[in-house]
Amino acid sequence: MADVWLSSLITATPQEGFELAITLSRRGVKYTQPDTEVLHKLRPDYANNADSLTAASHVIAINFQTVAAANDYWRKK
Amino acid sequence: MADVWLSSLITATPQEGFELAITLSRRGVKYTQPDTEVLHKLRPDYANNADSLTAASHVIAINFQTVAAANDYWRKK
Amino acid sequence: MADVWLSSLITATPQEGFELAITLSRRGVKYTQPDTEVLHKLRPDYANNADSLTAASHVIAINFQTVAAANDYWRKK
Amino acid sequence: MADVWLSSLITATPQEGFELAITLSRRGVKYTQPDTEVLHKLRPDYANNADSLTAASHVIAINFQTVAAANDYWRKK
Amino acid sequence: MADVWLSSLITATPQEGFELAITLSRRGVKYTQPDTEVLHKLRPDYANNADSLTAASHVIAINFQTVAAANDYWRKK
Amino acid sequence: MADVWLSSLITATPQEGFELAITLSRRGVKYTQPDTEVLHKLRPDYANNADSLTAASHVIAINFQTVAAANDYWRKK
Repeated sequence: MADVWLSSLITATPQEGFELAITLSRRGVKYTQPDTEVLHKLRPDYANNADSLTAASHVIAINFQTVAAANDYWRKK
Repeated sequence: MADVWLSSLITATPQEGFELAITLSRRGVKYTQPDTEVLHKLRPDYANNADSLTAASHVIAINFQTVAAANDYWRKK
Repeated sequence: MADVWLSSLITATPQEGFELAITLSRRGVKYTQPDTEVLHKLRPDYANNADSLTAASHVIAINFQTVAAANDYWRKK
Repeated sequence: MADVWLSSLITATPQEGFELAITLSRRGVKYTQPDTEVLHKLRPDYANNADSLTAASHVIAINFQTVAAANDYWRKK
Repeated sequence: MADVWLSSLITATPQEGFELAITLSRRGVKYTQPDTEVLHKLRPDYANNADSLTAASHVIAINFQTVAAANDYWRKK
Repeated sequence: MADVWLSSLITATPQEGFELAITLSRRGVKYTQPDTEVLHKLRPDYANNADSLTAASHVIAINFQTVAAANDYWRKK
């Protein structure tokens, strides 16, 4: 992947930080399976499965820890 | 999602922090599957399954780490 | 849940901290499935399954990290 | 459990800290299933299953993070 | 493995840090199963499975926490 | 286990730290199942399974977090 998609972990608000955590989680998938057509086909498998959605939320939570620490938890906002 | 749902990680008490962790965990699911009707249908799958409930509690625990650190563990309370 | 069940993360000893971590883990389940009758029925499912017990211990370990950090690891005791 | 089994997270060496992490992991199981006879019966289920052993090692790793931080990583040793 | 593949956790940008986290995740696999032919055969198993891809993204997220902390979250960039 | 296998978390390089994380992960398994013959028999179960290898890499990633923090991320190297 030659494109620049992550130049900073700093975000203006916690919500943007949460959305960056989602981006990081998706990129982790995309680096492992770069074929977007395959990813598209797999979507119903997890988007309609409760445990898969919990697992997705889990990865987002881990990445949000990183983004939140980077932003010193947006304490000064 | 254009609405603002997360403007701060700071809460008055640890219990409110725990409840924010639950919100974060649910939002992680909702960003992945925004269709609330689908989410509603999936509810019995995990709400009546011991391992799914443990997995849900796991994600809450991760998010609670983040919220607790943001609040310096409510030490001054 | 209107009741106050978590007013502080500070405990007198590490063991009480571990027990608080267990409370947090159970509350994570209970917020997701508030029906105590359902929870009671599900108990044999995980209490007699080795992997489910490991998963329960896993969530406790995560919450214990939070409680231990809040108490500065009870270093001054 | 009225007995005192955890009075400190401080250990003399990293290895003792790792062993304390194992104790914490087992206690997490035991608080969930206090019946030692049941636990004894379940032992073959996980002790002979590769994924269960990895899961056990995972919980130990989480608890070791806590114990290692408590001991400031035994840096002065 | 006698070759040097990890001489520093410091990277110029967060994106390079994320890519290092991917390298660490793959090395964790490769140390456990060094036979590249076996790894090649297993690829379709996880690259076409939604839950396996989420699990891969999970490990990357953990390693990214480490790399991000090492780089002080690239805050000065 | 009476032998001393972990006297320090400090390593000269990040790569040695990663290898120590692997040792910690394996020890977590070995404390749970000390019978090396059983472990040997189980090896094909996880070494040829993509999800098991990801799970192994996951535990290594957790332990690497600990070792990396202990070494202050080898920043001065």
